[in-house]
Amino acid sequence: MGRPGAGWGDAALKVRRLAVIGVGLIGGSTALALKRAGSVERVVGIGRGRANLERALELGVVDEIATDAASGVEGADAVVVAVPVGQFDAVLRGIAPKLDADVLVTDGGSTKQDVIAVARPALGARWPRFVPAHPIAGAEHSGVDAARADLYDGRNVVLTPEPETAPDAVDRAESLWRQCGARVARMSAAEHDGVFAAVSHLPHVLAYALVAMIAQRDDAERLFGFAAGGFRDFTRIASSSPEMWRDIALANRDALLAEIDRYGAALTGMRALVAAGDGAALQQLFAQSRDARNAWLRRIEQGR
Amino acid sequence: MGRPGAGWGDAALKVRRLAVIGVGLIGGSTALALKRAGSVERVVGIGRGRANLERALELGVVDEIATDAASGVEGADAVVVAVPVGQFDAVLRGIAPKLDADVLVTDGGSTKQDVIAVARPALGARWPRFVPAHPIAGAEHSGVDAARADLYDGRNVVLTPEPETAPDAVDRAESLWRQCGARVARMSAAEHDGVFAAVSHLPHVLAYALVAMIAQRDDAERLFGFAAGGFRDFTRIASSSPEMWRDIALANRDALLAEIDRYGAALTGMRALVAAGDGAALQQLFAQSRDARNAWLRRIEQGR
Repeated sequence: MGRPGAGWGDAALKVRRLAVIGVGLIGGSTALALKRAGSVERVVGIGRGRANLERALELGVVDEIATDAASGVEGADAVVVAVPVGQFDAVLRGIAPKLDADVLVTDGGSTKQDVIAVARPALGARWPRFVPAHPIAGAEHSGVDAARADLYDGRNVVLTPEPETAPDAVDRAESLWRQCGARVARMSAAEHDGVFAAVSHLPHVLAYALVAMIAQRDDAERLFGFAAGGFRDFTRIASSSPEMWRDIALANRDALLAEIDRYGAALTGMRALVAAGDGAALQQLFAQSRDARNAWLRRIEQGR
Repeated sequence: MGRPGAGWGDAALKVRRLAVIGVGLIGGSTALALKRAGSVERVVGIGRGRANLERALELGVVDEIATDAASGVEGADAVVVAVPVGQFDAVLRGIAPKLDADVLVTDGGSTKQDVIAVARPALGARWPRFVPAHPIAGAEHSGVDAARADLYDGRNVVLTPEPETAPDAVDRAESLWRQCGARVARMSAAEHDGVFAAVSHLPHVLAYALVAMIAQRDDAERLFGFAAGGFRDFTRIASSSPEMWRDIALANRDALLAEIDRYGAALTGMRALVAAGDGAALQQLFAQSRDARNAWLRRIEQGR
């Protein structure tokens, strides 16, 4: 699990022609990071919106553009699929017949079991060339204007290869993401979805629920009027894309439901301590949280 | 409710001798802010820890120090009580006999009904001189080294005077906090505690509960290892002082329990949408949250 990335000086992989399908924050940053590393010769940006593609060209994120994915991937030795998960089926079916036999296909989806379930039949003979990936570098901003060459520096990218995935494709995917500046970890898709249900999907649901609960009240304006910095940071992720998080919540439904239930039990336990006026137990729990969080921050600062 | 503050150029109040009891983030910043405004001639810092007081002297936060509160407040025309709420009873009983007849006493406690319940008997004849206040400017950092002259700039301070509170004391308290750079609002203590249960106390409990739930799991290290920026911001307030938040949770117990229950109902509703796979309703709720939060941020940026 997880090895330290060698960083973008590692030139194990050279991409001749990279096709990026969906040139937004994730796809655009991947292109910029590989360009920074000198690891790619030419990038073709593929999407449905011509204005966004032209903006990507103008920003130097891509070198050429295509609105038809099938023709765009022709001749590419690496393809990064960075469209919303709901579009994977159509995109992968469209490109499968045009993919080179030894191509590497990887993606930027936040959930992995659902992506795999779609990709396996859609890619047909090219399925072993697909290395499912999740770069842990979201933001509440999106679009190609938010793309940055350093988005992945020091961040985790999780690969979730399946038994049929070609080992050389996995190695190339690992090299590609490491040259983007990321650390790369490998785990099963089920493990991945369980981990991120707890540390990412659940907090998003919790933040959305708090803001919605306050927004729906008659005194919402007054309540927001006295909300301060703690509230702002706690709810930052509630400014994330509703469409994207709807898809994630549904794609990872079972794991998310299990985490909501665990959290409900934890909150019920804390409520009981408040109701009982058990200051000692509350202080102990709060201190356990603070200490665990601070230890985690220290590990991050030390680069783990 | 809430009037725009005239800022610290407003010289309606001049404090000859300010006694700050508890020279930490709140007390120290109040002293620095009033000095910046030229609104105070001399500040005496009062506390139990001599080392912290000497640090405050060294930093220029206070001009003299005292470890005995009763003698420290003698001759003061304004007193700011910025100790943990659990110490109010002893502190107020100690200083009451030494307070000048026309003194202003105000405080920095995060809850108000409990402070009032303690202050009324403890202050005796000086009770009408006490103007309960809550400066909305906490931080997860504390201590005099965290004190800043600009801590209150543009922040809210809520005053919760009681029927017996002397009107001239309320006006002086309002002037004092406005000269610290704050906007001042007035409401009843019960209203105050209800508002902050929703927008501050509840989020703290929710953040503590999430971190504790994860820290208690066998795979905690792995989960923290993949937590990222969204988790970091969501849980920032879980690095707050366990002692302080234990006190707040217990002091505002009834309002907090009501908010935990409301939140539990909101979360149960969201869980049902996930379980039912109701993408349209989820997206609508998420969008409502995002839009409400973004509108709130715009109002803050525009200075309301």
